[in-house]
Amino acid sequence: MINKLIKKIKETGAPIVVGLDPMLSYVPEHITKKAFAEYGETLEGAAEAIWQYNKGIVDATYDLIPAVKPQIAMYEQFGIEGLKAFQKTVDYCHEKGLVVIGDVKRGDIGSTSAAYAVGHLGKVQVGSNAYHTFNEDFATVNPYLGTDGIKPFIDVCKEEKKGLFILVKTSNPSSGEFQDQLIDGRPLYELVGEKVAKWGEEHMGDEYSYIGAVVGATYPKQGEILRKVMPKSFILVPGYGAQGGQGKDLVHFFNEDGLGAIINSSRGIIAAYKQEKYAAFGGEGYADASRQAVEDMIADIRGALENR
Amino acid sequence: MINKLIKKIKETGAPIVVGLDPMLSYVPEHITKKAFAEYGETLEGAAEAIWQYNKGIVDATYDLIPAVKPQIAMYEQFGIEGLKAFQKTVDYCHEKGLVVIGDVKRGDIGSTSAAYAVGHLGKVQVGSNAYHTFNEDFATVNPYLGTDGIKPFIDVCKEEKKGLFILVKTSNPSSGEFQDQLIDGRPLYELVGEKVAKWGEEHMGDEYSYIGAVVGATYPKQGEILRKVMPKSFILVPGYGAQGGQGKDLVHFFNEDGLGAIINSSRGIIAAYKQEKYAAFGGEGYADASRQAVEDMIADIRGALENR
Repeated sequence: MINKLIKKIKETGAPIVVGLDPMLSYVPEHITKKAFAEYGETLEGAAEAIWQYNKGIVDATYDLIPAVKPQIAMYEQFGIEGLKAFQKTVDYCHEKGLVVIGDVKRGDIGSTSAAYAVGHLGKVQVGSNAYHTFNEDFATVNPYLGTDGIKPFIDVCKEEKKGLFILVKTSNPSSGEFQDQLIDGRPLYELVGEKVAKWGEEHMGDEYSYIGAVVGATYPKQGEILRKVMPKSFILVPGYGAQGGQGKDLVHFFNEDGLGAIINSSRGIIAAYKQEKYAAFGGEGYADASRQAVEDMIADIRGALENR
Repeated sequence: MINKLIKKIKETGAPIVVGLDPMLSYVPEHITKKAFAEYGETLEGAAEAIWQYNKGIVDATYDLIPAVKPQIAMYEQFGIEGLKAFQKTVDYCHEKGLVVIGDVKRGDIGSTSAAYAVGHLGKVQVGSNAYHTFNEDFATVNPYLGTDGIKPFIDVCKEEKKGLFILVKTSNPSSGEFQDQLIDGRPLYELVGEKVAKWGEEHMGDEYSYIGAVVGATYPKQGEILRKVMPKSFILVPGYGAQGGQGKDLVHFFNEDGLGAIINSSRGIIAAYKQEKYAAFGGEGYADASRQAVEDMIADIRGALENR
């Protein structure tokens, strides 16, 4: 799957990922109105609205981008109905040929991590049948429990040729509280980064490992350091756009080959029509606004990489 | 909810929690057979089997215990159908008057943590309606992202009078890889413990805070230290029984008032009939075996607390 991701990045010339993190407040009125007319102001209605909203964005952008990253929390908040919309979204993105990064940030002790790995990346056995359930291509994983919490995910990834992005240095303001603490003079995130590099050796693709890392766009200096700590790991970089990151800050997340990073934007793309810059598209044109925002993001990052 | 938990611990004299972490391999044949006859060897069949299995255990033990802790991964692996069984289990345990600790180990950046908090502990707004979805009473949370990943959970807890157990020192063998790293001479888990104590001050119940911690039974010395670092935080202690912890090792997780800790056993209770000790119950008597295992666990911990 890392090979497919890289192939698609090269084909599209777009090392970016669209974060499908729908909030009901982002969904244009014509979509919620229709969904609520059919299902009422219910969980089912909300799930239908976010699914239709997602579908519009995917249809308008899938030819420009290699991958999407649905954030499961945004679906899980609507319970079972929301998770059905998550699954529909994953399946639809697969139909459209997109690589799907499940932003699930799971992680637990061994046997429990194994269950999460099976549910999100692998197959679950029921009697003599085996079923893919959520079936993402990559999952984000939390490292706090150490190697035996990560290992079951890697085992499933090996079986399925799938991958992980492990949290190393997250994009949020207080990420430093624990992640920046110095251990023998070096921050915790570097130690985690070293582990990611080591775990990654176990499951290599052609050029890069299937085991990548998450490093926030909001911490470009740390990104530069971590790029060197994990030379063969892809870095998933959230925090572009709405969270404050810009193309020029992100060049050092990439290797000299122009690969090694994939930049995520969520709100900046999917709710583009709410920005002044794209307001002319209006709610009805939200998907076209997303397409324009994707094109602008690609130009920004491509420009930054060409001028580095 | 922390007040209710304490009240129930006092009433039952049992500072324990039964971990509802069903694996299909634990479910006795008579249950799987019936479920598969009705639904086939499908995800629905698996979900029905684990739901019926859970129901038997809850019916056999609810009068002895204050709380249950369903591990969502074990349901999530069966996709949507599995998560329906999770929700059914949570709802049924509420009907039986049990406190439900959702072992979900979620945690993300602010807005995303807010969505998880809403989904698991709060209400989600759809138009003019608000819905409780998974509706656990407590949730376990991962602290790696720092205060702004935790704060949205605390906000929802305040609104709903619910609580959290934040991972501090986990029970698994490699938990020390990051958690034990020394920062100015003190392990990371102590720093996290201090934060838990601080976060807990924001949301106090009568005797203890709504914001507790997870510390593994497999690390009794660290438990003794953390007990003092977080005097007002309840400690949820996994790792009893199957993972190796015993009553006598656990006394220092408790305060002098005999409160402050709640010991979890999962496999040791729910799959008790598979142990030699309880084999006489057989698969048909699995729920009675669970009841006996609960009684034995209570006696072990009570004995240890009396003799400390």
